[in-house]
Amino acid sequence: MKEICVGIIGFGTVGRGLAETLRIQQERLEARIGATIRLKTVADIACKSLPEEFAGVTLTQNATDIFTDPEIDIVVELIGGIEPAKTFLLQAIENGKHVITANKALLSTHGKEIFEAAVAKNVEVGFEASVGGGIPVIKALKEGLVANRINSIKGIMNGTANYILSQMTEHGTPFAEVLKEAQELGFAEADPTYDVEGVDTAHKLAILMTIAYGLNVNIDHINIEGISSIEPVDIDIAREFGFAIKLLAISNNHGDNVEARVHPTMVPHSHMLATIGGAFNGIHFNGDTVTDVLLYGPGAGMMPTGSAVAADVADIARNILSDSVNRVPALSYQPERMTAPVITPMSELVCAYYFRFTVSSEPGVLAAIATILGKYNISVQSIVQKELGEDQPVYLVVRSHDAQESAVNAAMAEIRVLDACLAEPLKIRILGAND
Amino acid sequence: MKEICVGIIGFGTVGRGLAETLRIQQERLEARIGATIRLKTVADIACKSLPEEFAGVTLTQNATDIFTDPEIDIVVELIGGIEPAKTFLLQAIENGKHVITANKALLSTHGKEIFEAAVAKNVEVGFEASVGGGIPVIKALKEGLVANRINSIKGIMNGTANYILSQMTEHGTPFAEVLKEAQELGFAEADPTYDVEGVDTAHKLAILMTIAYGLNVNIDHINIEGISSIEPVDIDIAREFGFAIKLLAISNNHGDNVEARVHPTMVPHSHMLATIGGAFNGIHFNGDTVTDVLLYGPGAGMMPTGSAVAADVADIARNILSDSVNRVPALSYQPERMTAPVITPMSELVCAYYFRFTVSSEPGVLAAIATILGKYNISVQSIVQKELGEDQPVYLVVRSHDAQESAVNAAMAEIRVLDACLAEPLKIRILGAND
Repeated sequence: MKEICVGIIGFGTVGRGLAETLRIQQERLEARIGATIRLKTVADIACKSLPEEFAGVTLTQNATDIFTDPEIDIVVELIGGIEPAKTFLLQAIENGKHVITANKALLSTHGKEIFEAAVAKNVEVGFEASVGGGIPVIKALKEGLVANRINSIKGIMNGTANYILSQMTEHGTPFAEVLKEAQELGFAEADPTYDVEGVDTAHKLAILMTIAYGLNVNIDHINIEGISSIEPVDIDIAREFGFAIKLLAISNNHGDNVEARVHPTMVPHSHMLATIGGAFNGIHFNGDTVTDVLLYGPGAGMMPTGSAVAADVADIARNILSDSVNRVPALSYQPERMTAPVITPMSELVCAYYFRFTVSSEPGVLAAIATILGKYNISVQSIVQKELGEDQPVYLVVRSHDAQESAVNAAMAEIRVLDACLAEPLKIRILGAND
Repeated sequence: MKEICVGIIGFGTVGRGLAETLRIQQERLEARIGATIRLKTVADIACKSLPEEFAGVTLTQNATDIFTDPEIDIVVELIGGIEPAKTFLLQAIENGKHVITANKALLSTHGKEIFEAAVAKNVEVGFEASVGGGIPVIKALKEGLVANRINSIKGIMNGTANYILSQMTEHGTPFAEVLKEAQELGFAEADPTYDVEGVDTAHKLAILMTIAYGLNVNIDHINIEGISSIEPVDIDIAREFGFAIKLLAISNNHGDNVEARVHPTMVPHSHMLATIGGAFNGIHFNGDTVTDVLLYGPGAGMMPTGSAVAADVADIARNILSDSVNRVPALSYQPERMTAPVITPMSELVCAYYFRFTVSSEPGVLAAIATILGKYNISVQSIVQKELGEDQPVYLVVRSHDAQESAVNAAMAEIRVLDACLAEPLKIRILGAND
């Protein structure tokens, strides 16, 4: 039986997940692909020895051993971060290796350079695991929904942020406390910035937009807000209003321009994205032909991510065996059809808003705020006032009808400088029932 | 630019959906595939003329014109039913054409013959649209989840049945009335047997099991029960118990044997399948590597089905262009690895049950039924009694703990012949919280 050789750079959680997957699924992959997938070499600077079940696999501290091995067909980069991951990927491509990466930070920053290098050397770049963990979302978008203009992308793409919001929702625990628990349980990184501030979600949105629209979208195109300002009171009031608060990636395709935003969002309880709890991911596409499709599954984890990387291995192995490399362009569109995006300015966004104002408990505050909102044509749908206790500030929560973001920002700027306004106003965008 | 020519047999709803999709998405498909997909010929015995937007397309009443046209690469069969669809597909294959079909009845009955013929002639068989309408579920299973032992398949795969149950749930309308409405609205066929009796769902389950497990499963392997015995009262009591009633396809993979069943099922409200309403489909897989994945979308309809068939066209076009036909085996496993299934007998199933007994309102009935249940080790979790009015029968609803189906059937046989038992007892299987 023919053999396809794989080298892995980085033997952390995902690297071990892939090695385990290839080991456990060896026979199944043979039965499906008609060839043996052989893990030949692992490169890791910290790993002293491989577990005994990988007895036949070579361990090296030098990634170059993998690029320069003529037997190795596919190089899998699983170290994360920009460097040396980028250099390794480019070296592997330069050496004519097919490459696979789960590195969304790298792809959404230097993706263009990597994909162009791969086209020049006629090798494949697999990146199924970069978005949605084990969910086969990249393949669905590139192949399953190929005959669609994607009208919108909406998704919960970061398990840590969703876990934190879910715990806050279920137990009413404040953000900082849930984050600390999540870190102790290993669900959140020691430095959780990328997860809770929306950066990781933005990396993923950039990748999805690129292949959905055929536009070279990168992280700098995405408008990003995180979830650290959300308090249990917001979650409670949202629930009363009929919403769950989720950290969403959102892109509506307006043709001439495309939205690119990541922010906490009020999602109507009737929307499937509202039902996705814990560390799971859910990614929703609206296509002009297919209408609404949602893919749900584990957005991270050793084995689920291993499943996605192994699917890339199988895909590339099949192309090697049938001599059909780049049968599907890495970015879904033929390279010469890729164009630059025009991103819709956030100021042009129109949606309903949730505002939380922290104000002093004194007469006239409501009138002052209402006057400013009215001045900017922000019409109020409902108001909730929450007393925090004697001599404490008051939360004034306003749910608006549709308003334009530029007007909202102008109103916030005026409200923020009122004497009675004691803290930065919080605004959360509301997803429409038909969105 | 290279051209791939398509012929469509059957210009009904799906045929028109495909033609429309190929027309509207022409430029996008070119940008993605790097070739033009050209609809060359439509064969339909009833269609007198094609709409004017298909001016360049030939219309014929004779399907043979398509098979024998040397320019046509891909033949799409969209007439449904067994014959002449089967003969057409085999003739197309015999003429060296790649074929695509959305015909689940045919594939789950004569699939083996068709797939073997295609292997012999080295042509492709695309059938993405046969399950889950526009949802790219076949591709997800064959490629995205390739590195998984699929442990279970659970799904809502018939939009008509789900629409009827959803309407019954929302409005409390009886089955027959909702069905009539659905027929008037065009959501249900004039002969709804296949949809409401679970046969269509079973066709789809047979196809999914085949590619998930590498087993030659056909419609005769599936245990089938429909939804026509469900009454609004069952839906109401289910809701009180914390369940939605859904027509599910279920297959648990026990290794030596596999479950294959379609029946109304009590689904816990916390399960994502419980949230899928209307005519939508949702298909859930548990894989040993990926854990839980759910795909949601439109299970039918002209354009969504067109999206799925067009994805098959694109897939096969790419294989033609890169000379990699049968790069992925049609049934996911290499043909020589396909084996015969051993189906778990329904009598061995163990789950919790919902029973509705229609009994006369007289003393001792409850005791008689409880005694029979006890005799067969069916332990009662809760009982609800519903009076239907004076001189009317009484509904006695029992929710059991886990019990074995063989014992349940024996108990039902004894209860059914009690004098006080006025109608056939209804049993609905309950999905466990961890299923």
